[in-house]
Amino acid sequence: MSDAKLPSHTEDFSEWYNQLVLRAELADYAPVRGCMIVRPYGWALWENIQQALDRRFKATGHVNAAFPLLIPKSFLEKEQAHVEGFSPELAVVTIGGGKELEEPLVIRPTSETIIGYAYAKWIKSYRDLPVLINQWNSVVRWELRTKMFLRTLEFFWQEGHTAHATYEEAAAETRQMLEVYTDFAVNEAAIPVIPGRKSDAERFAGADQTYSIEAMMGDGKALQAGTSHNLGQNFAKAFDIRYLDKRGELQYCWTTSWGLSTRFIGAIIMVHGDAQGLILPPRLAPFQVVVVPIFKTAEEKAIVMEAAQNLRTALVGAEVRVKLDEREGLTPGFKFNDWEMRGVPLRIEIGPKDVASRTVMLARRDQPGKAGKTAAQQDEIVTVVKALLVTIQQALYDRALAFRNANTHEPDDYEQFKSVVEKGFALSYWCGSSDCEAQIKEQTKATTRCVPLEQESREGVCIKCGQPAKEKVIFAKAY
Amino acid sequence: MSDAKLPSHTEDFSEWYNQLVLRAELADYAPVRGCMIVRPYGWALWENIQQALDRRFKATGHVNAAFPLLIPKSFLEKEQAHVEGFSPELAVVTIGGGKELEEPLVIRPTSETIIGYAYAKWIKSYRDLPVLINQWNSVVRWELRTKMFLRTLEFFWQEGHTAHATYEEAAAETRQMLEVYTDFAVNEAAIPVIPGRKSDAERFAGADQTYSIEAMMGDGKALQAGTSHNLGQNFAKAFDIRYLDKRGELQYCWTTSWGLSTRFIGAIIMVHGDAQGLILPPRLAPFQVVVVPIFKTAEEKAIVMEAAQNLRTALVGAEVRVKLDEREGLTPGFKFNDWEMRGVPLRIEIGPKDVASRTVMLARRDQPGKAGKTAAQQDEIVTVVKALLVTIQQALYDRALAFRNANTHEPDDYEQFKSVVEKGFALSYWCGSSDCEAQIKEQTKATTRCVPLEQESREGVCIKCGQPAKEKVIFAKAY
Repeated sequence: MSDAKLPSHTEDFSEWYNQLVLRAELADYAPVRGCMIVRPYGWALWENIQQALDRRFKATGHVNAAFPLLIPKSFLEKEQAHVEGFSPELAVVTIGGGKELEEPLVIRPTSETIIGYAYAKWIKSYRDLPVLINQWNSVVRWELRTKMFLRTLEFFWQEGHTAHATYEEAAAETRQMLEVYTDFAVNEAAIPVIPGRKSDAERFAGADQTYSIEAMMGDGKALQAGTSHNLGQNFAKAFDIRYLDKRGELQYCWTTSWGLSTRFIGAIIMVHGDAQGLILPPRLAPFQVVVVPIFKTAEEKAIVMEAAQNLRTALVGAEVRVKLDEREGLTPGFKFNDWEMRGVPLRIEIGPKDVASRTVMLARRDQPGKAGKTAAQQDEIVTVVKALLVTIQQALYDRALAFRNANTHEPDDYEQFKSVVEKGFALSYWCGSSDCEAQIKEQTKATTRCVPLEQESREGVCIKCGQPAKEKVIFAKAY
Repeated sequence: MSDAKLPSHTEDFSEWYNQLVLRAELADYAPVRGCMIVRPYGWALWENIQQALDRRFKATGHVNAAFPLLIPKSFLEKEQAHVEGFSPELAVVTIGGGKELEEPLVIRPTSETIIGYAYAKWIKSYRDLPVLINQWNSVVRWELRTKMFLRTLEFFWQEGHTAHATYEEAAAETRQMLEVYTDFAVNEAAIPVIPGRKSDAERFAGADQTYSIEAMMGDGKALQAGTSHNLGQNFAKAFDIRYLDKRGELQYCWTTSWGLSTRFIGAIIMVHGDAQGLILPPRLAPFQVVVVPIFKTAEEKAIVMEAAQNLRTALVGAEVRVKLDEREGLTPGFKFNDWEMRGVPLRIEIGPKDVASRTVMLARRDQPGKAGKTAAQQDEIVTVVKALLVTIQQALYDRALAFRNANTHEPDDYEQFKSVVEKGFALSYWCGSSDCEAQIKEQTKATTRCVPLEQESREGVCIKCGQPAKEKVIFAKAY
């Protein structure tokens, strides 16, 4: 609610982001280093993300459950790659009820191990498969460099964990959930994403195959916005998750896991935001519309507030998420700026003249100034607002896609490559060697983001070493 | 899915409960002592509880947020009564990222302290008040004796935390949330509860006043099913939560907190359950209706399954939560028992003759045998099912209330009192002295559950010491 200006979006994207998270009251710093408090406005956004995803999970046959926060430390050690990946990041409980514990417990950094333990108990026969469970929770990873929403010690997410009878089913599940994330990103968050396969170096610790959706932020950097892992039989073997097949033989299950976290809020901020602050996609915005009443005298106030309340009632009745700004002692101009900063997609202004003429003024958040303004009849407010919200949703997607296209290049050589990844994505052939990958990372700070599932051709030469290559890869600096 | 019989409900209520939780797949034991895994069926019940409460919280002006799991240990020590109450129960993180921490962190046992820290930052002026925030999360308390849902090391709950400008507002909020819990228990869970005030001995650590709703379980014992605390200025002073009033003077806020947890699932099990297993109230049941198809030949199967699927479609379209039991290789009788054990309120049986006559057989879970059976036309299924679900909901409430009334007594003297609290509630005058309360507890194991808000008269003598007493109290053994 401060009216001090945000840092410049173009000059200091990072500080613009940090300040915006605080000013828009999405989150605040916690007393423990690297932890965050998600404030009501940020949490309402997360609740809308949760609902949009949960609907999709349930429509694809998944159910929710809750596994414990505390995991015996020894569990983490059962899968070799997993322990190597996660043990440096663990928060360890050594004291419980005033006494030193015989076995230390870790706060889950992710739940493959404890869920593996449970699935081994629950799954007996092919009749018990597939098991398709998701959970909404928080996990703790002891990160050294943190940034609100993008990388925090504790973060909120969902983690799906499934068990299947065959490799093919697990592979299909992994890809299906990648599609669910893609559909969510595109159609709910208005964020174009590239679904693809991770390189070996970027794979989840314990997975055979990791897929991700990658989005371009407003500074041209990449953000991994959701991941889906085919865990093969690695966890099934570590935790003895077996089933009797139709012939009565014991088989190891094939498992998957997939997650999307509050870092997605960071993506929404950095994809759509502008110099004035947030721009939230209508489908996820806590408030899709804000009504700002304009008046000077007490008389004017009475008639304007009545009309404003009627607008609110009409919009609530049509299931539009609307906020009537009834705050006292603030100018309309202050309120305009405040809600622009908070990214409400559409503003309705109503003053005494509007009441008299049964009209209102509508202002689109995504089009500042006159261009985004239209008058509308109060009687038609629901129809007009609903149509405009659809238009804004699409406009945000189109703009983000145009920005990504403008900042994605296919460099001719490694010199061009280096300049491309300074700000944007390089789509380049890569031979697949981890040496080339590591050298590129060292020399440019760009990493392989993913091997896009859609590939135009399968013939080329590696941008680094010139050897034959079969796939193009997205290279970029990443959050 | 086992068809072994449950332990007897009347002979060993405790073991009946333990077995039922496992058999109905509500929850399972975790590898860490005293922790539980809430399985999909149990979590679906909790999700319905969450929705019913969350709707009420939002309707009374509250918003959700998320505060961190990890709290600096020193925070707990800022409020004297609070630290005394909670420090024996803490889980302490001493290692993070492989290093010993400078200050140990505790996993929240409840969030008054970290929220106090945040409110002190956020609240500046009377314009910022009231702050009405709730969060859904889990907390950890190092309990020694645990029982699934009723008392676990980690449990799931909501905790509301509000800050107000005046004592009166905080007191009204505390009582309002008690009413919300009462309304939820009665109208959603079909559980009659007694709202009342806790004695000093039973108060929350750090509260000026604690209110609770108390329910009678099927064995006559009491269960505290939700609490609401008026925290006075205790936490405001410990965390310096102050605001500038309209005259420009700094004042301490008045705060409240209130919570309802997964132990409420234990209440639902123990209030409504019977010898066959769970009976879930229709408004909260994950499945309100199960359709069991009955057939012998492949031909019969084809026509029965088609009709069953049509029934499901009609019911889903009417927003009835319905499960069609399509499992292969199980007899209808096995399925009947299985879904009875899982407490689905209403069963629809459909066989070839029903298909021919366009009828179905309906069986109420709360009325075993012929008494609970009615035939219905398939064309009228939605109307009939919806009406029956309302009837069942009411019948469950009525039965629970009748049971509570039958097991609540007003003993004439202390000898009678002792026998009453062996199985049931004693409603008796109490002088208010903690000596009498402690002696009663020692001699009978019954504790003061609450001082009911509704009191018929204000004149009597203490059931223990015979001294003048102004209020009747519910005494009972409790979970």
